[in-house]
Amino acid sequence: MRPGDNYYTAARDYPATGAWNSSQHPGNRQFYTLPADRKVQLDVGATLSEVTIAYETWGTLNSDASNAVLLCHAWTGDSHAAGRATDGQPSPGWWESLIGPGLAIDTNVWFVVCTNVLGGCQGSTGPASPHPDDALPYGSRFPVVTIRDMVRAQARLADHLNIRVWQSVIGGSMGGMQVLEWGIMFPDRVRSLVPIATCAQATAQQIAWGAIGRRAIRLDPQWNNGDYYDAAPGEGPWEGLAIARMVAQVTFRSDNIFSEKFGRELADGNADKSGIDMWDRFEVERYLDHHGDKLIRRFDANSYLIIGKAMDLHDVGRGRGGVEAAMSRIQVPVVSVGIWSDILYPSYQQRQIRDIVESTGGTCDYIEIDSPHGHDAFLIEFDQVSAALRGLLSRLH
Amino acid sequence: MRPGDNYYTAARDYPATGAWNSSQHPGNRQFYTLPADRKVQLDVGATLSEVTIAYETWGTLNSDASNAVLLCHAWTGDSHAAGRATDGQPSPGWWESLIGPGLAIDTNVWFVVCTNVLGGCQGSTGPASPHPDDALPYGSRFPVVTIRDMVRAQARLADHLNIRVWQSVIGGSMGGMQVLEWGIMFPDRVRSLVPIATCAQATAQQIAWGAIGRRAIRLDPQWNNGDYYDAAPGEGPWEGLAIARMVAQVTFRSDNIFSEKFGRELADGNADKSGIDMWDRFEVERYLDHHGDKLIRRFDANSYLIIGKAMDLHDVGRGRGGVEAAMSRIQVPVVSVGIWSDILYPSYQQRQIRDIVESTGGTCDYIEIDSPHGHDAFLIEFDQVSAALRGLLSRLH
Repeated sequence: MRPGDNYYTAARDYPATGAWNSSQHPGNRQFYTLPADRKVQLDVGATLSEVTIAYETWGTLNSDASNAVLLCHAWTGDSHAAGRATDGQPSPGWWESLIGPGLAIDTNVWFVVCTNVLGGCQGSTGPASPHPDDALPYGSRFPVVTIRDMVRAQARLADHLNIRVWQSVIGGSMGGMQVLEWGIMFPDRVRSLVPIATCAQATAQQIAWGAIGRRAIRLDPQWNNGDYYDAAPGEGPWEGLAIARMVAQVTFRSDNIFSEKFGRELADGNADKSGIDMWDRFEVERYLDHHGDKLIRRFDANSYLIIGKAMDLHDVGRGRGGVEAAMSRIQVPVVSVGIWSDILYPSYQQRQIRDIVESTGGTCDYIEIDSPHGHDAFLIEFDQVSAALRGLLSRLH
Repeated sequence: MRPGDNYYTAARDYPATGAWNSSQHPGNRQFYTLPADRKVQLDVGATLSEVTIAYETWGTLNSDASNAVLLCHAWTGDSHAAGRATDGQPSPGWWESLIGPGLAIDTNVWFVVCTNVLGGCQGSTGPASPHPDDALPYGSRFPVVTIRDMVRAQARLADHLNIRVWQSVIGGSMGGMQVLEWGIMFPDRVRSLVPIATCAQATAQQIAWGAIGRRAIRLDPQWNNGDYYDAAPGEGPWEGLAIARMVAQVTFRSDNIFSEKFGRELADGNADKSGIDMWDRFEVERYLDHHGDKLIRRFDANSYLIIGKAMDLHDVGRGRGGVEAAMSRIQVPVVSVGIWSDILYPSYQQRQIRDIVESTGGTCDYIEIDSPHGHDAFLIEFDQVSAALRGLLSRLH
């Protein structure tokens, strides 16, 4: 295997283009593999050896490395924040219209980096990666990682790229958790922070949503306790993962958007419901199935579990004397961005971030995205997100 | 089997008391089995023969049958609206403190009836019941039923009890759906209606929540397409049902109550998270597991599916020219009760009921329960529910 390959991607039927048989990874994805003697020490006590971090960059790092910006992706995101859909990279970048020359994150000015998180399945070391000891997939052997572990791995990459300071660290949802941890773990390596639609610590309700998906994957016989990479083509814990994704997909959106988009239409047009059976679907179910089907083609169930657990364990106050004590380390400008219709990370949590930062002597603007789209609005309302970022980035520049 | 027994209850290890081996059913539960020539015609086109309706009553029907009140239960409820926990009836009535002499639903005044819904597993005909043709459980043969079918069955029981008119029909959540259908299907058989924390038609988001649980049960290998009643003792689709219940349990409560009750505590006291693995639970997960475990001991997975589907199909406007046209048949006083913290049936839906009733010439009061407990508040905030009911019932008396 080449760096960044894993048993998940190898098993996928990336099609005739042969992207995975060529010497090129999709897009401009690059890889940094830590030397064998530089293990990553995890919060849970385990260590990971020969960790690979996949990343993409846009723009040019200036001579004194003073124009670097780090983007942090959400649960099922990856390093492909910008760029076209290409072979093996089925979607355009998740912030495609925000990153580029003259755009909100102006690549004429900034050198932009996005990594795939530790534990992921899009190039960075995760459960589908070969274990250094035997080159077989980690599977059930992959340890629990935390948001802090993800940030530690990103810091190793920053060292490798000779980036001592990020002018801004920006991210939504789980990306925002990394943003806060960057500010707390490495206060002298950041100049500003933009946490979006996120929280300082996962709430019981957020954990509950995660737990439902976790148990659905475990229930899938094809999950096989996490050791399924030798399954026959077309087999795997897809149904469990699809159910887990359904939970996320409902919490990512909102009641009113669902009503508007799907109403009560039946997927098969049986308007009078005569003869309906248990498995006839409403339109909203077809939509959820569609998103589940899309996800299982691009995402590994074990990575879904590992990253979900990291979010549940997210608590900036853990081991630091509480949230306030931890957040008091943040003394750079913060822009906290909320979404009024977000039912997963309700906007009160982003206002809490603002309040805590200000109460401990920092400065924080709160900007609320006016959108009915719920949590996903940070991946939809590009104009409003652009405006929020432009304000900060132009001040920095 | 006696009337009301089914393959679900027969398989449960109702304990040493031997309630299910005695000639008595728990509490004062009674049964009415329709004559073989009186089939129930269902909305989906199928018919059910020899349907049994389980019910309980409190108070005394007066000589002209003019003091009857019907209570309608929610998803996993049953006919045991009032009364102590007894053998085979592990919980007190779900509105125990509302029903009795001098209480809000005063049994010195009212004759109160509560039935187990068609499709249920607590005495009424459902998927676990013996099929008349072969006395084997219906299982996968049980047809989809609708809220209207449930109401049709209740109307047969009312005929049997010589109750032509209900002075009030009262219920929360799915019970409220039945309340609305009573008013629309049998406008001359009701004198008032109290729909609580419910809706005129299920929304896409409500359907989505239901769909997640549905797929989790289907994924459970022990569900076996609905034919599992011959499973060995202790076996059955419990894990799928428990996951389905988790979804419901989160939507039944609220973010703030979850935070207050569970915070971020780990169930096993591993406060520093060192050595944590994927399946170490937070307190909120232990709580959800506990509720799942409770439910699988008292509820049949197939009934859970059948009743959930009935709720998803709930739409008072179906086949009637729309919601407004249907609701215009309601010309008796209505009290619509909402709960401000309800995330499953948000209070705007109960205000919509009020607005529609009033816009079509009816009269409707809207009362909002002030509670942080979310949807379940109608089973918790007895003082406020009592106040809402007393006002109406005292006017009727």
